[in-house]
Amino acid sequence: MPATTQTNGVSTQKDRSKLIPFSSRLKEGRALAQDVWSIFNAANLPPDCINLGQGYMNFAPPEWVKNAAEEALNSVATNHYSHPKGRLRLREAIKKHYSPQFGRELDVDSEILVTSGANEGQYSVFVAFLEQGDEVIMFEPFFDQYLPSVTFNGGVPVYVPLHPPKHDGKHSSSEWTIDFDELRRAVTPRTKIIIINTPHNPVGKVFTRHELEQIAAIAEEHNLLVMSDEVYDSLVFDDNEHVRIATLPGMWDRTVTVGSAGKMFAATGWRVGWLIGPASIIQPTLAATTRIVFCSNSPLQEAAAVGLEEATQRGFLDLQRKQYTERRDILTAGFDKLGMKYTVPQGSYFVLLDISNVKWPEDYPFPESVLGRGRDFRACWFIAMEIGVSSIPVSEFYCEPHTSIGENYARFAFCKDVDTLKQAVERLQNLKKYLA
Amino acid sequence: MPATTQTNGVSTQKDRSKLIPFSSRLKEGRALAQDVWSIFNAANLPPDCINLGQGYMNFAPPEWVKNAAEEALNSVATNHYSHPKGRLRLREAIKKHYSPQFGRELDVDSEILVTSGANEGQYSVFVAFLEQGDEVIMFEPFFDQYLPSVTFNGGVPVYVPLHPPKHDGKHSSSEWTIDFDELRRAVTPRTKIIIINTPHNPVGKVFTRHELEQIAAIAEEHNLLVMSDEVYDSLVFDDNEHVRIATLPGMWDRTVTVGSAGKMFAATGWRVGWLIGPASIIQPTLAATTRIVFCSNSPLQEAAAVGLEEATQRGFLDLQRKQYTERRDILTAGFDKLGMKYTVPQGSYFVLLDISNVKWPEDYPFPESVLGRGRDFRACWFIAMEIGVSSIPVSEFYCEPHTSIGENYARFAFCKDVDTLKQAVERLQNLKKYLA
Repeated sequence: MPATTQTNGVSTQKDRSKLIPFSSRLKEGRALAQDVWSIFNAANLPPDCINLGQGYMNFAPPEWVKNAAEEALNSVATNHYSHPKGRLRLREAIKKHYSPQFGRELDVDSEILVTSGANEGQYSVFVAFLEQGDEVIMFEPFFDQYLPSVTFNGGVPVYVPLHPPKHDGKHSSSEWTIDFDELRRAVTPRTKIIIINTPHNPVGKVFTRHELEQIAAIAEEHNLLVMSDEVYDSLVFDDNEHVRIATLPGMWDRTVTVGSAGKMFAATGWRVGWLIGPASIIQPTLAATTRIVFCSNSPLQEAAAVGLEEATQRGFLDLQRKQYTERRDILTAGFDKLGMKYTVPQGSYFVLLDISNVKWPEDYPFPESVLGRGRDFRACWFIAMEIGVSSIPVSEFYCEPHTSIGENYARFAFCKDVDTLKQAVERLQNLKKYLA
Repeated sequence: MPATTQTNGVSTQKDRSKLIPFSSRLKEGRALAQDVWSIFNAANLPPDCINLGQGYMNFAPPEWVKNAAEEALNSVATNHYSHPKGRLRLREAIKKHYSPQFGRELDVDSEILVTSGANEGQYSVFVAFLEQGDEVIMFEPFFDQYLPSVTFNGGVPVYVPLHPPKHDGKHSSSEWTIDFDELRRAVTPRTKIIIINTPHNPVGKVFTRHELEQIAAIAEEHNLLVMSDEVYDSLVFDDNEHVRIATLPGMWDRTVTVGSAGKMFAATGWRVGWLIGPASIIQPTLAATTRIVFCSNSPLQEAAAVGLEEATQRGFLDLQRKQYTERRDILTAGFDKLGMKYTVPQGSYFVLLDISNVKWPEDYPFPESVLGRGRDFRACWFIAMEIGVSSIPVSEFYCEPHTSIGENYARFAFCKDVDTLKQAVERLQNLKKYLA
């Protein structure tokens, strides 16, 4: 390069802002937008507002699982690096717990991968498999982290909506349906991955065997990788059957299933998740996660291992399901009493409340952050400020052209203790006077 | 798209292997190569081999830091999601501990970011700042994770070697030098980031103020972001001064400094690290880490907070430095007794031993994994198998054209208790008969 050009280049740089430009990948996927979690953060709401917004528990992990974490802290090796695949004890526990559910003997060396939360596991799959311009199909509403995780790695999101039922009154999450023609039309030669989320956040839908079979047929036909986010797999209620798409004929080889210790053991801050799948998916994903985090935290992996080892014999998962069913029913009884329409979730810990008939004074003072967003942003803000219960507007989980589907709903999380839920229900009765 | 083409496309896909192809990004940056850590893994070595290979401690974190972790496990909120920026208590503790060292009042909201280990923090900086084709300068030998972390995010690594001294006998890590003409020649219009690592892994070099000033001048001239990996900042020995490049005139605005609770509190498996820098670097990096991991584990962040809050008043860091100095001196005394040449580290917990005069029988049975690699791979294998002490071959930390510099050295980690080090030294005396 001639010296003059270099000098020019440098002087241009000196003249321009000292800011070093960030990557263009941050300009996509809403990566820099103020997200819904910041807007509806406790810090912005009345101090005594009951938080049914964010999906974390207001109770602690079970005593016996916490004890295992303490024991790990008091050994040497369990305070130091784990193998990037995850601690062997945890991988063995995952194998023992999940092998019967997958109908195959899982291999701890090549078919199980511990990640720093389910989120980082999913991110690693995108790092490992996406090529610039590859398309990723996701059902709307979608867990909001999928979008930037895909675009950061060169992927292009393609949306297929779940359609809410048209009738009035309360309905099961099973009534949110896929239009399979729509799904087929979404597939192009660039489609690489399809994301499933069952039980579904925020709808609570547990995908049926028949639905999964149709998705599987499309995945087989077009050689797609299926990322099945099943982090709420231990929270399926009533008589609903949680079917794993990986267990359908021919699907093991193209499916990676995502699990979470945080959801299973009321420990969302432990950041321990796992991926289960064939070596052809797990090995490239291991190469990715090894570079991203190197390994996951060791003491809480040990605790998660004890959790999985003992959960069944202690009857913990059954008890927990019963407790969550009770929590769900307290919340939905409150909505019934109000005469409001909502989605009864088959799984997960969310209820979608139809807030289309909530009316607020025309001159109600909304902050800038919720103006110019879907109607649901204003509804949730109003309910938080006037009723004292926070929730999350569902249009956040839709792409722009489809926000009108989401803006009829607010998501209420019931991963809270019974007293808190009862108090929330009591407050929510004050919504009556704002219903049209 | 016409149906016929689609049919053709599908039939082509059906014909090809069922394997879903992984991303081309895994084909670069040695991402899928068998790495040195797997080859020299304890599982491949004699069971009684003393592990001075991998850089983790064979002792536990301090009691009072572990106690803080246990306390966090016994509260509710500290078992659940943290803010993606990190728990406020930890950010406050980082502010208090580091503000005097940076000569400025750090802002907990915009200038400090907790990450899931220093590794994930560095990865997030690359996600946030690299554009396809951007060049990243790193000094060789380099911490091996930098390479794939850069290439995964579209970056192109550019190498500038640290040159070992030419004279015989033991020498200080300060004698490993930068050729600044070489550094200047490495800068192109595509250079975006320069990575510094001080104290340096594996050389142990603590960069001098004068060296950092020259690097700073180049960074300013070409508007480069400086990522300063200072994870061994609490392990600087003797009278060496640890200078932070962020504190040089004009450098705050373009520097992100990396720290690690794992290195500071003997807890490499806790996965708690942090970044310190201007809002213009921290905010885009926050957007990246939020999508990669969402947040870091909460209980061990609380423990790290207590660690930083109390480290100074307890005299912990001074005591730890004294202990590590003693450990270093035990190991180097063993090398002295052997009459071998090595690098006395000014910081970090590594000693580079010159193994160029180690000779093994010509017919020694080496495994495939070390054949076809640098001479140092065979030397380290031989020493582990015959002497019973494992170490890491240093050519792994060089790019292919420069491996000849690295293959003279083996890296020995002294983050081990005194008894282990003494035993290792005793065994190493058996190397005498293999020295030419």
